[in-house]
Amino acid sequence: MALARSPLAPERFPDMPQVPGVRLATRACGVRYTGRSDVALIELAEGSSVAGVFTRSLTASAPVDWCRRALKDGLGHGRAILVNAGNANAFTGRAGEASVTREVEAAAMALGCAESQVFVASTGVIGEVLPDERITDQLGGMIAELSADGWEAAAQAIMTTDTFAKGAAYYAEIDGNPVKLAGIAKGSGMIAPDMATMLAFAFTDANLPPATLQALLREAADRTFNCITVDGDTSTSDTLLLAATGKAGNAAVEDPLDHRLDGFRAALEELLRDLAQQVVRDGEGARKFVTIRVAGAADDAAARRIGLAIGNSPLVKTAIAGEDANWGRIVMAVGKAGERADRDRLAIRIGGVEVARDGQVVPGYDEAPVARHMQGRDIEIAVDVGIAGGRATVWTCDLTHAYIDINADYRS
Amino acid sequence: MALARSPLAPERFPDMPQVPGVRLATRACGVRYTGRSDVALIELAEGSSVAGVFTRSLTASAPVDWCRRALKDGLGHGRAILVNAGNANAFTGRAGEASVTREVEAAAMALGCAESQVFVASTGVIGEVLPDERITDQLGGMIAELSADGWEAAAQAIMTTDTFAKGAAYYAEIDGNPVKLAGIAKGSGMIAPDMATMLAFAFTDANLPPATLQALLREAADRTFNCITVDGDTSTSDTLLLAATGKAGNAAVEDPLDHRLDGFRAALEELLRDLAQQVVRDGEGARKFVTIRVAGAADDAAARRIGLAIGNSPLVKTAIAGEDANWGRIVMAVGKAGERADRDRLAIRIGGVEVARDGQVVPGYDEAPVARHMQGRDIEIAVDVGIAGGRATVWTCDLTHAYIDINADYRS
Repeated sequence: MALARSPLAPERFPDMPQVPGVRLATRACGVRYTGRSDVALIELAEGSSVAGVFTRSLTASAPVDWCRRALKDGLGHGRAILVNAGNANAFTGRAGEASVTREVEAAAMALGCAESQVFVASTGVIGEVLPDERITDQLGGMIAELSADGWEAAAQAIMTTDTFAKGAAYYAEIDGNPVKLAGIAKGSGMIAPDMATMLAFAFTDANLPPATLQALLREAADRTFNCITVDGDTSTSDTLLLAATGKAGNAAVEDPLDHRLDGFRAALEELLRDLAQQVVRDGEGARKFVTIRVAGAADDAAARRIGLAIGNSPLVKTAIAGEDANWGRIVMAVGKAGERADRDRLAIRIGGVEVARDGQVVPGYDEAPVARHMQGRDIEIAVDVGIAGGRATVWTCDLTHAYIDINADYRS
Repeated sequence: MALARSPLAPERFPDMPQVPGVRLATRACGVRYTGRSDVALIELAEGSSVAGVFTRSLTASAPVDWCRRALKDGLGHGRAILVNAGNANAFTGRAGEASVTREVEAAAMALGCAESQVFVASTGVIGEVLPDERITDQLGGMIAELSADGWEAAAQAIMTTDTFAKGAAYYAEIDGNPVKLAGIAKGSGMIAPDMATMLAFAFTDANLPPATLQALLREAADRTFNCITVDGDTSTSDTLLLAATGKAGNAAVEDPLDHRLDGFRAALEELLRDLAQQVVRDGEGARKFVTIRVAGAADDAAARRIGLAIGNSPLVKTAIAGEDANWGRIVMAVGKAGERADRDRLAIRIGGVEVARDGQVVPGYDEAPVARHMQGRDIEIAVDVGIAGGRATVWTCDLTHAYIDINADYRS
């Protein structure tokens, strides 16, 4: 299946820096696909901190189970991330656990580290046993080829229904010390809120203790990956890992709220938002990128839930696909979100144009400028629900025929 | 817009009995459509009990607000139901309330009853002021034409994107006294759980006090209309009213759990299930009718939520549209439901064939019979989540290109 590159894709893969302490390699292991690389190995320097957030699915995959355990057992230190595309190793029972064990043992032996320092991630078909020996057979070769410049190749190796490789890089200072942040991600369908979506791996050379890194990641994920939705479906495999190699040499800062981390925190949020938005821009069948800003909610969490109710509504998403400024469906979605909203103070703007206020359409509403906005690629919806000061921004895409084409035919 | 009749539609509108105390009339009032009837007036005999369940939307329509108030003010007695299609009178602010007031005043005056005995319902476009005088102008004419045989005409008058008129009739005895139950419904999109979906009106000549009727309706709705989903979107207008005229002459039974009501309770559930399933069979773009049976959940409510998570999943629904026995997506949907499930005891059957048990695909799984089942019109999915004895059955349809055609173009 060859899908056309998303019309919402960035022009090209970004220029990525070397992040001291991070090296990457890829291989065509034939896990499921042929004629393309499908495995990435990412090596982290000794002493690297690792943080992770994972799917909240109760049917999480064997690799997700392992990562949670490894983070705990290894006290947040890591030396390697091994990722494959084509097979999610989910709902594979004891066979799936055994596959993970063999992958981890092989990588730990090859790299000379503890098993708890090896993280694994798998994405692809659910319910088929992972042919792990196809991966472990290639470990030696990959280790020999590790390179600090392997970003784009790694981003390509982890793609499934993705139509473009996703990467981003940002820069910050900690205490006057320059640090780099770089990341790659994959994901296109089965994208839903309240978790790190599909697979994303972020790296920095900053020196940050594991607990601090975990707190920073959790906060940034809540405002980025947890604010996107393609189809409201939650993967069994969602994994977001953040590794900090410490090579930048800044003095370690413990408190995640320390003002010395303000610049890093902002850059991390920008990095994750960039990657998360790239996932939406590659949403299965997406033709329009939609930003939903919610204000006036009871609190920020309520605003996010309202934004996601709008962003997950098939009726809103099909209206956007049809370039129909159908704000009545936005009203409907606000109503079903289950959060407080004052129907009689509700206000809606589309493309910056006020459509409704005080619970009804504005007097003399002229649909022409809104209809023009709906014909564009970037759709802006703003809703004020008239309760209090809670705010959130959510990103999604439209629901098109191509989504059905992809998902009626692809065994994922 | 002329939509082809759903391939899942029943062959014809059922034979409906006269229900003593219920008379119906319809008119082409030109609320929005031309060349078709769009308003139904249903008259109830004096002394009729009325019960209702309504959308849980926080942006409920003006007619829903009114019905809730009328039920309370009128202590569950009613004389008329006035319904229009084409305009939902939702998100219309004070103008919407004024429209309802004028409708109710006119109907109460024409029928010589209290305003609290007049129920109204509207379905169609959101956000446009209802041209209520087009309806009230025709009230006198409709009253002159009231007939006990008007079921099919009334079912047709309340249709929007529906492709067939929906009706059903059942029979029971209370204390040896035969009673009739009949109902009509409309609904096709914006169909979601946890409410009476869109518009449904059910009638019986049984003699039942309002509080009893309300309890019976609530219980039956939870097992029928609240177990269907087309797209997970919740209407601003969902209204299910049940009227009992008392003409059957049975002695009133107060306790809804009284065994003398067992037959009536069963018939009411059958009636509502029949109507609810007809709504699913007319789901926008539906080509397959899907029954999802969940067992082994923590309790019945948990089972229903798991069933609805499966039934609302765009990935499950597109797989069904593609006739793909993609049980991995069922695993995914169970995982995202947020209810307890034992991943390692999960079992799945499709079309009666065991696909997975104990958290993995069955040994030697042969997809051929399952693939054949997926090619049929009626799809059966059964899931056991391995926790306890909670059970539920949920009905939904597939997600096809036609859903997008309908909703990218129709201003609803």
